This record gives sequence, C-alpha cells and structure tokens, in this order.
Amino acid sequence: MTETITIDENALGQRLINHRREFHRYPESAWCEFFTTSRIAGLLQSLGYELHFSDAIIHRDTIMGRDEAEVAVARERAMGWGADANFMAEMDGITGVGAVLDTGRPGPVVALRFDIDAVEVRESQEDAHRPRFLGFASLQPGVTHACGHDAHTAIGLGVAETLAANRDALCGKIKLLFQPAEEGCRAGKAVAQSGWLDDVDYLFAAHIGMNVPSGTLVCDPQHFLCSSKFDLHFSGKAAHAGIEPNAGCNALAAACTAVTQMLAIPRHRDGMTRVNVGQFHAGNGRNVIPAKAVLMGETRGENRTLNSYMYQQVEQIARAAAQMHGVALEIKTQGEAIGLENDPTLVELLAQLGLNSGFSQIVLEKDFGASEDAGYLVERVQAKGGKAIYCLIGSDLAAGHHSGDFDIDESRMLPAVKLFLNAISELQTHPV
Amino acid sequence: MTETITIDENALGQRLINHRREFHRYPESAWCEFFTTSRIAGLLQSLGYELHFSDAIIHRDTIMGRDEAEVAVARERAMGWGADANFMAEMDGITGVGAVLDTGRPGPVVALRFDIDAVEVRESQEDAHRPRFLGFASLQPGVTHACGHDAHTAIGLGVAETLAANRDALCGKIKLLFQPAEEGCRAGKAVAQSGWLDDVDYLFAAHIGMNVPSGTLVCDPQHFLCSSKFDLHFSGKAAHAGIEPNAGCNALAAACTAVTQMLAIPRHRDGMTRVNVGQFHAGNGRNVIPAKAVLMGETRGENRTLNSYMYQQVEQIARAAAQMHGVALEIKTQGEAIGLENDPTLVELLAQLGLNSGFSQIVLEKDFGASEDAGYLVERVQAKGGKAIYCLIGSDLAAGHHSGDFDIDESRMLPAVKLFLNAISELQTHPV
Amino acid sequence: MTETITIDENALGQRLINHRREFHRYPESAWCEFFTTSRIAGLLQSLGYELHFSDAIIHRDTIMGRDEAEVAVARERAMGWGADANFMAEMDGITGVGAVLDTGRPGPVVALRFDIDAVEVRESQEDAHRPRFLGFASLQPGVTHACGHDAHTAIGLGVAETLAANRDALCGKIKLLFQPAEEGCRAGKAVAQSGWLDDVDYLFAAHIGMNVPSGTLVCDPQHFLCSSKFDLHFSGKAAHAGIEPNAGCNALAAACTAVTQMLAIPRHRDGMTRVNVGQFHAGNGRNVIPAKAVLMGETRGENRTLNSYMYQQVEQIARAAAQMHGVALEIKTQGEAIGLENDPTLVELLAQLGLNSGFSQIVLEKDFGASEDAGYLVERVQAKGGKAIYCLIGSDLAAGHHSGDFDIDESRMLPAVKLFLNAISELQTHPV
Amino acid sequence: MTETITIDENALGQRLINHRREFHRYPESAWCEFFTTSRIAGLLQSLGYELHFSDAIIHRDTIMGRDEAEVAVARERAMGWGADANFMAEMDGITGVGAVLDTGRPGPVVALRFDIDAVEVRESQEDAHRPRFLGFASLQPGVTHACGHDAHTAIGLGVAETLAANRDALCGKIKLLFQPAEEGCRAGKAVAQSGWLDDVDYLFAAHIGMNVPSGTLVCDPQHFLCSSKFDLHFSGKAAHAGIEPNAGCNALAAACTAVTQMLAIPRHRDGMTRVNVGQFHAGNGRNVIPAKAVLMGETRGENRTLNSYMYQQVEQIARAAAQMHGVALEIKTQGEAIGLENDPTLVELLAQLGLNSGFSQIVLEKDFGASEDAGYLVERVQAKGGKAIYCLIGSDLAAGHHSGDFDIDESRMLPAVKLFLNAISELQTHPV
Repeated sequence: MTETITIDENALGQRLINHRREFHRYPESAWCEFFTTSRIAGLLQSLGYELHFSDAIIHRDTIMGRDEAEVAVARERAMGWGADANFMAEMDGITGVGAVLDTGRPGPVVALRFDIDAVEVRESQEDAHRPRFLGFASLQPGVTHACGHDAHTAIGLGVAETLAANRDALCGKIKLLFQPAEEGCRAGKAVAQSGWLDDVDYLFAAHIGMNVPSGTLVCDPQHFLCSSKFDLHFSGKAAHAGIEPNAGCNALAAACTAVTQMLAIPRHRDGMTRVNVGQFHAGNGRNVIPAKAVLMGETRGENRTLNSYMYQQVEQIARAAAQMHGVALEIKTQGEAIGLENDPTLVELLAQLGLNSGFSQIVLEKDFGASEDAGYLVERVQAKGGKAIYCLIGSDLAAGHHSGDFDIDESRMLPAVKLFLNAISELQTHPV
Repeated sequence: MTETITIDENALGQRLINHRREFHRYPESAWCEFFTTSRIAGLLQSLGYELHFSDAIIHRDTIMGRDEAEVAVARERAMGWGADANFMAEMDGITGVGAVLDTGRPGPVVALRFDIDAVEVRESQEDAHRPRFLGFASLQPGVTHACGHDAHTAIGLGVAETLAANRDALCGKIKLLFQPAEEGCRAGKAVAQSGWLDDVDYLFAAHIGMNVPSGTLVCDPQHFLCSSKFDLHFSGKAAHAGIEPNAGCNALAAACTAVTQMLAIPRHRDGMTRVNVGQFHAGNGRNVIPAKAVLMGETRGENRTLNSYMYQQVEQIARAAAQMHGVALEIKTQGEAIGLENDPTLVELLAQLGLNSGFSQIVLEKDFGASEDAGYLVERVQAKGGKAIYCLIGSDLAAGHHSGDFDIDESRMLPAVKLFLNAISELQTHPV
Repeated sequence: MTETITIDENALGQRLINHRREFHRYPESAWCEFFTTSRIAGLLQSLGYELHFSDAIIHRDTIMGRDEAEVAVARERAMGWGADANFMAEMDGITGVGAVLDTGRPGPVVALRFDIDAVEVRESQEDAHRPRFLGFASLQPGVTHACGHDAHTAIGLGVAETLAANRDALCGKIKLLFQPAEEGCRAGKAVAQSGWLDDVDYLFAAHIGMNVPSGTLVCDPQHFLCSSKFDLHFSGKAAHAGIEPNAGCNALAAACTAVTQMLAIPRHRDGMTRVNVGQFHAGNGRNVIPAKAVLMGETRGENRTLNSYMYQQVEQIARAAAQMHGVALEIKTQGEAIGLENDPTLVELLAQLGLNSGFSQIVLEKDFGASEDAGYLVERVQAKGGKAIYCLIGSDLAAGHHSGDFDIDESRMLPAVKLFLNAISELQTHPV
Repeated sequence: MTETITIDENALGQRLINHRREFHRYPESAWCEFFTTSRIAGLLQSLGYELHFSDAIIHRDTIMGRDEAEVAVARERAMGWGADANFMAEMDGITGVGAVLDTGRPGPVVALRFDIDAVEVRESQEDAHRPRFLGFASLQPGVTHACGHDAHTAIGLGVAETLAANRDALCGKIKLLFQPAEEGCRAGKAVAQSGWLDDVDYLFAAHIGMNVPSGTLVCDPQHFLCSSKFDLHFSGKAAHAGIEPNAGCNALAAACTAVTQMLAIPRHRDGMTRVNVGQFHAGNGRNVIPAKAVLMGETRGENRTLNSYMYQQVEQIARAAAQMHGVALEIKTQGEAIGLENDPTLVELLAQLGLNSGFSQIVLEKDFGASEDAGYLVERVQAKGGKAIYCLIGSDLAAGHHSGDFDIDESRMLPAVKLFLNAISELQTHPV
C-alpha cells in the first residue's frame, strides 16, 4: 500500500458491516433494485460523486430478463421503504448507478464494478441464522441476499468513502459501477453496450465466497461458462377439446415437442455442452386445447462456440416445433454469459498486493465453473484497449450460495476494500 | 295433475327468485359449498325434514377432484359468511345434504337431485349484468354461479317448501338430494356408491338452460358423453442442469413424452374418441432438472367402452413415460362421467305433464353433447330396480354456460317446481 | 337383353377361363404390366380395334407411385416372356392400352374400364391352391394376381371379342380401357387427366369378389374412402457418430419425429380420419449418423375434406420435422383415391339387367369400405356430362383379397360379360 | 534380435504378400470365415501345430452379432470355394482357429492374436485399385478386406512358418490365435471367456495402418473407447390401419419413441458419451400397423462407467417404449468393447526392438480413438497374471479403413513379423 491513501481500519470495518446489514434487510431481485439504488446514490452524492443513471449506464434495448409487472410492484415497494423520489425519477425505471470521482489531475481511469441484486430465495427462519438472531433478516418474503451482493455493495461503498476522503491524494479518474441484475446474467451485456466503461484503463470486479475460504485471494479464476438463458412463448389457438379438437392450434403440444427435441441436441465433438428446460407452464382449462405455453430454459458450453451451437439448435428446434403445430413463437432472451479472461498483468498485480491487503493466502488459478455477466464488461474494456480482472475474495460460508441459510464471514469485506485501494494507488504511480 | 298439492304460485315464484339471488351472492366451487349447504340445511330443518350429511350421502373413498387446501380456505370463508357451526360439524368436511320427508304412509320413494356448486369463472363487472345492477353479484371474486346451479338449488327449496306444506296430502317417502361438486363430474360416483338412493323408486334431475329456450321442456336429452378427468403427477429428482445433468430424473421430460404419446393414441374403429392435456406445470428454476411436473387432462368417448379404451391407454402411456425417465407417477382421478339413459315411462310421464306445469312446448329428444355425473345416480337407481329421468328446463340466457355474463330467465324456475310436484303427485296414485 | 348381340355362352365361358389363367401365370405389379399390355394389345388388334397407348391414355405428369428401377427390370422380364417389340415401343414405358371400336353409326359412346395389375404378394405354394395344382401359378416369385385383376382382364377381352363379332349389330362407339396400376390408386388420376374418357356418355367398371358371394350383383356400393398415399424421403448428412456427432444431420431422427407427430394429428369434429406410417427404412451403418430415411404412409378420411385435412397436416409436420433436424425433405405422392358416386339411372339399369345376365340375386347398396382410383374416372366422366357406375360382381373366394391363397370362382366371369353386353345393347336403343 | 531364430527375409517377404493376396480374394465377414479358417488350419497343420477349434477357443454363449442365416450361406460358399470338410466339421459352425507349438522345454507361454474377418464394404472397381489391376480383387461382391485383416492373417502365418522352422531353437509354448469377428467387437469377449488364453504369460496383438505412416511403430496407443453395440427388436401386432387402427400394437411407433428418447439421454458430468441409432427398419405394407421394427445402435463412453450409464439408459428407454405401445422387446447385444491398457514393460520391450525389426521410427503414444475387442483378451491375460500389449504397425494407405479403395503398403508386413519374432526370442531369455 502506498502512503497516499489513509484508512481508519477499525472504523471502516464496522461501517462495512453496517452497510451490508442494511442492504441485507432490503433485498431486491434483478431489475427491481430501486431502494438499493436510491440508498447507494444518496450516500455517493453526499460524498461528492457525480452520478449517472439509466440510459447513461444501461443500453435499454439490450436489457434481458426484465419483467415490467414485477418492476412496477418493486417501484411501489421501494417508495414504501423510503426511496428518494428524485433518484427514482432519474432512474426512469432502470436500476443501478454509476459514480465518478474526477480528480482533475492527469492519470489513469480506474473502474470498479459491484453487483447489487438479491435472489428469489426464501431466507432461513431458523434462530441460528445470524441475520435472524441479529435482527437484519430480509424484509421481503421470498427474496434475500443469498449470493453475497449485499457485501459487494458494502465493499463498493467502503471504497467510495475512502477514496472521497483521500481525494487530494489521487490523480486520474475513478468510476464506480453499482450494477443491477447480475443474477441470470441479465444486465452485463446492456452495461457494456452503454459505453460507460469505454474510457476505462483498468477494471476490477470480484465475488465473495465461491468456495474459497476466509483469508484466501484467488487472482485468476478459470473456466467461466458460456450460457444463454431464454424463454419460449408459444401462442396457438384455443378450441373445445371435446367438440372440435381439429380447430385448435395446440401450444402445449408444440412446447412438448420442442422440449423432447432440445434435450436430444447432438453432443459436440469439441467438448462440454448442456441444455435444460427448467420450467414449463401451459393451459388454463382441462377441456380446452391450450393456446399458450411458456418454456424457460438455458444452454451452456465450455466455450462460446459450443454455447452458440447449442443455442442455435434450440432456436431451430423451437421454430420448427411451432410450425409443426401451426402456432406462433416468440423467443425472449433472458440472460447471457460469455467467457471471461483476466489480463495477466493485473493477475500479477493482485498477487503482489494480496498479502499486504489482509489476505493470508494467494491462489492463482481455481475453477469458477459458473457464469458471470462481468464477462461482457471485461470483454468491452479489453476491446477498447483497457485491462480487466475478476477475482475471488475468500469467505467461509454458513451455507452454499443461493441457499436460504447462506451467510458470509463479514470480516472478509475489509481486505477486499484494501486490495482495491492498494491496486488503485499502485496503478496511479505504476501503470501496468 | 291430482288435486292433492296446492300452491300459491305468485308467492312461490317470488321466493324462488329470492332464494336464487341469495345463493348467487355466495357462490362456492366444487367441494367448497359449506355456506351453501349450511343455508339449505337450515331451511330444510325448519321445514321438518330429516337431514343426512357426509358419509351418509357421499362415499368418501370415491370422492374425486377435491383439493384439501382449497377446502380449508372455503371452510374459513363459510364461517365468515355465517355458516352454522353445528351443520359444519355434521358435514365433517364433506359438503351437500340429503333431506327426507317420510309421510309414514305406504307409497313410493321419490327422489329429486339438485346440484349446488358454482364455477371458477369471473363474473361480469358490466353494469348491464343483472346480478350487478340488481345488487346480488358474487361476493367471491373469480367464482360465480355461471352454470345455473343457484337456480337448481332454489327449485329444490321451492319443491321442499311446497311438499312440507302439503305433507298431509302425501304418501310414501320424498328424498331431496342437494349434491355438491357436479362441475368436473366429481361427486356423482361417490353419491351413487353411498347407497343413499338405493331405495328410490323414481329419481328426477334436471338442468336449466342448455340452449333450450324459455317455455320449452326437453324430456329425453340424448348423447351424454363418457369422460374421465385426471391429473398426472410426475416426481423425479432435481439436479443442477449445468454441473451434473446425469444426476437428475427429469419429471418435465417424462411429462412431455407422456403428452406427445397420449395425443397419438390410435383412433378407434367404433367411433368418436378424444384426449386432451389442458394444463402442464413443471419446474422451479431455469437451471435445475425439474423434479416435479403436473398434467391435467381428460379423455372422452361416445360410449363407455371407447372412453375406457382411451383412459387405459393414457394410464399405460403415463406409466411407461415415468419408467422411461426414472420418475414416479401418481395418477389422480379428478372426475368421471358415464352415459345416461332415461326410462321411457318417465319420459312419457313428463311429456304428459309438461303443458299443465307451465311449459308451452314439449320436445322429446335433443343432443346433450356434454357430460353429467347424474349418470351415476341414474345408473344406480336403475340397477336397484328404480326408474330415473334427467330433463332440460328451457330458459333464455344472457350468455352461454360458464361465461361471466351468464344469467337465466328467473321466471322459468316456477314451471320446473310445478313439473316436479305434478310428477310426485301423479306417481303417488299412478305408479309407472 | 336385346337381340342384337349373340353369344355362344359355352365357348365364351371357356375362353374367359383360359384368358384368366394365362394372365395369372404372368403377373406384373403396378406400372410393370408390359407383357400383360402386349398380350391384350395383340388380341385386340387382331379383333380390329384401334389402339391407343402411353400419353394418349395416361397423363404422364400425374403418374404416381412409379419406380423407374422396377420398371426397367419389368421391361426386361416382359421381353424375356415374349412381349411384342412394336407394342413395347408404342407404350414408351407407360403400360396399359385403350381400344376403340367405332361403328361409324350414330349412337352413344360407351366405355368400360378393366384394371390389369397384380399385387406384390407371394402366391401360396400349397398343393390345394388351384393355380398350383392346375399348373397356372405365378411365374414371378413374390407377385401374383391376388386381387382378381386377371379376371377383370379376361372379362374385358370377353367383352371385346363378343362386341367385335357383333360389330354390325352395334351403333355408336365402344371404348375399352385396360388400365394399369390400380393397386395403391396410382393411375386413376393420370388416366382421367389424359382426357381419353372425355367424350364418354356411359362408363362401366366393376370389381369381382369383395366379400360378395357368387351369384350376387351389388349395383351401388357405398362409402369409397378418400386416401392419400405418400413417401417421405429425408436427406441429411452422414457423420461418424462417435467422432463428431454434431457434424451430422440426422435423417433417421427427423423421420422419427415426423412419425410420432403424424400419429398425433388431432381427431376431426366431422368424422372418421386415419393416418398410418407402414414402413420406415433408414441408415446403413451402426456407427454413422443416418443420412437417409424413407417413410411410407397414408392418410384416409370419410370424405375429401377430411382426407385433405389429414394430408395437409402430414405435409406440415414432415416439413417442420425436416427443418428441425436440418435435413431436406422430398414428398412423393404414391397414390390417391377420392370418393365415388354412381349415377342412379345406371344403378337402376344394372338392377334391371342383372337377373337376365346370369346373377341370381341383386343387391342395391353395400359398404365398400376401401379405396378405388376408378373414382377419378367416374368424376371425370360425370364432370363432362356423362354417367358412370362401379358395381361388384359376386364370387366366392378361396381366401381374402391380397392373401397368397386368394382364388376366385371362375364361373362368375361370364355373368359379368353378359351384364356389360346387355347394358351396352340397352343403352344403344334406350339411353338413360 | 537374438541368434536363435533365422529368417530368409526375401522369401518370407514374398510369401507374406502371397498369403495376403489370397485371403484378399476370399473375404468373409464376421462369423462367416469358414474358408479363411480352413485355409489357415491347413497351413498350420502342415507346419505341425496342434489345432483348437470351436468351443475350445470361443465361449459359445457369449457370442455376439452372429446371424444364423448369413452363417448358413457362408458355409455353402466356403464349401464351394473348396473349404476342407474335416475342418468344417471341427469348427462346428464357429469360425477361427487356435494353434499351439509346444516345444516341450520349460519357458514362457507367448500368445499372438490375429483377426481374420473382412468387412461388408463394396470393393472399388476402379482400374487404379491395385487388387483389381493385379488380379486379386474380392470374389464376393459387397465384402472386402478393407480393414487390413488379410494382412494380419498373413503376418500370423509368416510368424507361424518361421517359428515352425526354428522349433528347435525355441523353449516354452507358442499360441497363435486366428480370431474371427473382430469387426463390431463381436468375438473378443467370447474368446476371453473360453479360457484358451488363461495360461498365457505374454500376449501380443497389433493393427496395421490406423493413420500411422509406413515405417513407424506405435508402441502404446491410447484411449480405446468403450462401446456397446445392440439391436432392438420390437414385436407388436399388425392391424389394418384403415379399418381398425385400435387393434394394432405399433412396433414402428414404439421404435420411433425409443429413438427420440435415446438421443435425449442426459449428458454426463464425468465426460464424453455417445449414442447413435444407425439403422431403422420397420413394416411391410403402407396400410398396415407395423408389427415389427428393428433398430441397430451403439453407445460409447470415454470409460467403462460412462458407457454403462449410456447403455443402461438405452435399455430403460427401450423397455419403456415397448410397454408404452404394448409391444414386446428383444434386446440383442451385437458387440462390446472395453478399454485396453498395455503393460508398460512390454511397451518398453517393443520400443527397444522396433528399430532392429525394420521400423524407422518409434512412437510411444498416439490416440486410438476407436474400439477394439482385443481389450477383452488383454484384460483376461492381465487378470490371470500375464502381460499384454496392442501396438500399431504403420502403413501408408491408398484410402481410409472401411473405404472401398482401401489398400495397404504390403512391404510393411515383414517388419511386423520380425518384431513379433524378436519379442518372442527376447522373452524366452529375458522375461519381463
């Protein structure tokens, strides 16, 4: 750590925990983070950051997996929780906020990305569950921060506060992105396409937990899976199943055909592929040829070519199944993840800074084995000539991610903040 | 018509309308008719009828299409509406009531059956809808008497009142069955198997409307379809679709296989057959191999053999689909209808009595083209040596059955009551 | 019977048997009747008939179910059996012959149609099989006259001989059509479209047997089924199933999808429909993604609309199944039958002439329950203002049609000849 | 090479070519190698080997993929080609021969295995195809030695001749196995289970070609795929598709269901799996519900567990598809391959001897990527305490294996013979 940035570690550590617990109480799922965004924006504004909302940070046409009805309910709830009306207006329906600290001095543009959404999981009601016995459990039944994004948000605010307090010791520009809708990989592509990161020289992102124990920093996680999430909406024609079965166009039957055939997409020579239909909902009455059917599914591949192969087959099959039964088809992309490759110089940088930032063990590579829409941000920054890294912040967990009993080791937020601050400090004087 | 029974037609006509409107306000769907039953029982008790509930009139093991969760909610609601606690206790969870008027004098046992359940249809909110502008619209959103069973109930009470008032002029025994759960053909079989009708010499049942105009009586409707209603519950094993797809047992895939194959049951040499899967619900998460899938379907046949052929194929296919995917299967019968054949002597009787009962036109045969669980009652009575008839009471309708705009011509209830009274009167002196 | 035509019944009866047995020895399946046509043509030419071949009687583009490779083999075989080279040249690859006897005198144009093809059935090798113990069994293994068209051909020649011998007693014009490829309903449409029958006033056709006993004439058979016969050829791309399964386009899988879905074409409100896939052949090697698959199937309907409904669904499904698997599809129509409705005046005529022609019992209506491409000829003649009839000539059978043990009662050919002669005679003087 | 064995290389080289060309002329497919076996046996007998046939070398109950009808035809053909009647009797229907040279002196038991069957491929008729222009092309249309087993046989005879000529210089026992039916992996398991190799200390086997160039020896090929080959025979009930479709049990439909579902067997977490249905044959008539259907398929897996997973799913699916359609199912295993792991000490031995045996390049590992039933022999020998090796003898090829243009570089047989002789010689003095 350079001497330019000073921290009161005890005070910061406590504030991180306070922040995290507050966000834990008010969990909001993807594209619904109105209260969360409002709270973040209020804090950042008071610290002197310039704020960017809505189309400035999210390319509206690229948004995936956003349900207008859910969003409407979420806005009401956020207002009820006390969201700021001005920020609500600035968001214009699109959650998330980008904050800029421009020192006015020449220097690199460093960005950090923190994802802020909760998941649709019912939080544990057990007394042993810490959020419950310490009184910061979720106030929204069926939604909770079971992935750790409350901690990510807190880390982001910790970084923001320290940078603001050390403003005079900094040069260049700092951009903090509080990103919505990471769950389901729904926002990453839209953030990338907004262009908000196009001037960035260095991008940092991280995830807490992920089967990495407390004290360990994984600098270069491997094998981010490519994936496409999709909904298939089949629309046919209802008819009385007894009186004139020939008059219907059976959306349910078309969807069944699509499922069976999608599961039979040929395996690929070049490696691992996957396909799943996780949900199927169709029909209203027992004696009516169903006019509507919805499938929710996903493909995966161990690289982008393999996932594309799978997804193109899904499209081909779904279209043909619709034609076969004379029904219409709408394919709605709900999320997408591409690979993610860290820049080696940043991997090396974090590996050097880790022990000084409060980690006790530095691991270079570890299988990630899941999907992350940060891949889009990393790809965009790299395409524009910048460098990017996504690392894992170890934390012992009470239960696995997306479990109702999930809980983190709150003491692991501080090292993450310090790591980021050290990296910013280092890059200002020694660009890599 | 004998002279033994006297009626004040004006008063009776108004009471029929009052009864019908009250039941219209408190609609309860199949197996949920607690308030309805309580109200009927209270009126009949005050008239001196002996009442039979629960197992006495319904063979519990033969009940179909009853959802415990819905029933629990319905009990609460009925209590809120003011259902009588004693009757609730007597029902013991099973709706419907049988009432007996025993004259103590030798004579035939005549039974009349009235079905009392409403349907899950949203009632019209238009000002032109009479229940709305006259203030007797449904008090339960999403449920309404759109099939006319409120009128059937009122007719039954009209008959009950008149008979009680003329008790001294009667001989033999009168049994009035206020049957639950006719919609979906869910209760008929259980009523038949209870044996409550086994001593009946003559059974009468009727439906109002059914595309028969006001003033017309159809004595012998034809072609009651045989049908089986079923739910298929597939239970497999969830697994992460990306990480270990081989570890799951895919209930959704099994259900898709079942659907596709059920729709391909071979046509039958001997006539019309049908099969439909009207609803399909499966899965929770996009990236989870679905562990649960539910199909709701039905078969039909123009006779009992043809429906049995279809239903046996459904069972064979569903079982094999489950085995194919290594999932468990539970088949829940939700309703059943068999044919219905009237006794010619009763057809002749009604044809003779119709014009004197207030009908202006008598039609012998008309296609019914739907299903009725009264078929089980008719079959049972005939099997025990009695005679039975199911007729249609004409009524101009505001809209078709099961439409939210459905409404009847209330003036057509009175002729139905008179027809039944005349028939009872006639049979006491001239058995057929 | 008028006195204009004289017959030596004994001699004619024996010649009919001789003709029938010769044709029985040389059976040729649909579109392969080169020797048969050559023999018929030789006999008719010697009787002074004007002969028409090939495009004159068959509209080449409308031909269905003709296999060039089989035809090539058949031509060779026919030459080996001694077919006439000149007639072979005239046929130009298309079998069948039309013969005209123009009296030069004014009068009606009467046509008679006789179908001449055998079926691909293995003839019984049992000693009790008459063709075998009398020495006229099929000389071509796997093909035999198991439908009675050898008798039809003999009847046609008997009519031809008698008419030629009585030429001076006739007026108008007689046209005799010896039609190929009735089996599978492959030629009828092409004959109709050739226009050869367009000047015909009266058309007669008949079938021997058909569950009608010896001695009985059925004048007006009912319910000729509409049907479409089709082959579906799926062409994909082979690939090594182990090494690169993703590189193939699986024609076998596409065909399986098509079959399953075709069997699930919804039943039709308006009546009886059928669909069958009778044959499926695909693939060469066990470890190769199959590049080729052929399905052979048929649809039926109790009227033309219903058969069209079924066939259009087949096409829609097959095309979609091909697209789904990325394979090409060729649909080859192999045969077609439409309904057939006799003209009442001809029904009446035959009913009057039957007893005088050697029949002992006249039946008006009987269910046909099968398909006949004579329907196209009847429709064409009727469309052009003529009248037509198709009747059944009773014959006790040794076994059912298309059985290897099939054999007719040869004595029943003579009454058929006499019936046709009587009809011609009657129509020349008393047109109906 | 030790000095104990002496060879006239020129003479031996020419004899190998002569042998190979003779066997090339008389190709016989799997389980049909009667003439081949007879010729081999005659030569070995004249060299003084003790011969073992039939049950002595093949466990009859474990035989896979043997068609009795084909075998019957093959026996006739072999007799026509001049097979020895005594050997035919000894074979008792089971092809292949084991030969033993017992020196009577103590020493190791060394076995060599040569596979002798041809493949069902049509040999090239091009003038440029060497077997054609040199006059040793296949005498059996549709069958040819397109895999190089004619060369394997010749190599075996070359080894046999040299060993017999050097008998006095040898110790221990030599066993030469001329194995039938390697193609499709049909015989290996049955040979292993016969126990004929149970006393073997060292087993050698090899394949010529396999994309290894002339002059190269591959000592330790890797990744032998596990595979199961199977035929599924569905037997239902025929019925007229038009008249009574409900009366059939549709074997074709059951097979289609099985195919679609087999292709959808879930991918496996642990690695590469494959499934293919390479052939589908069903039905006879277009208008008959098909009573018979046959599928020919295979599964693969990159290890035994994965192949078992696939094959068990195939069985489960096929059984359920049969039940679903009410048809019977017979599963006939047609071939099986397990992995194959060489013993390192023998790999080292061959690597040392290669250059002295006429090879110019020694390669240790190369992907095999296919299946070999030698795996069963290797496993058996290893299980009984012996050591085994399977190597690749490089040969430039005119075209790939199983192509009609396939031809080998005949000069590469001699180094193979020398390699085996050197190995035997070495092992007699220096066991590994």
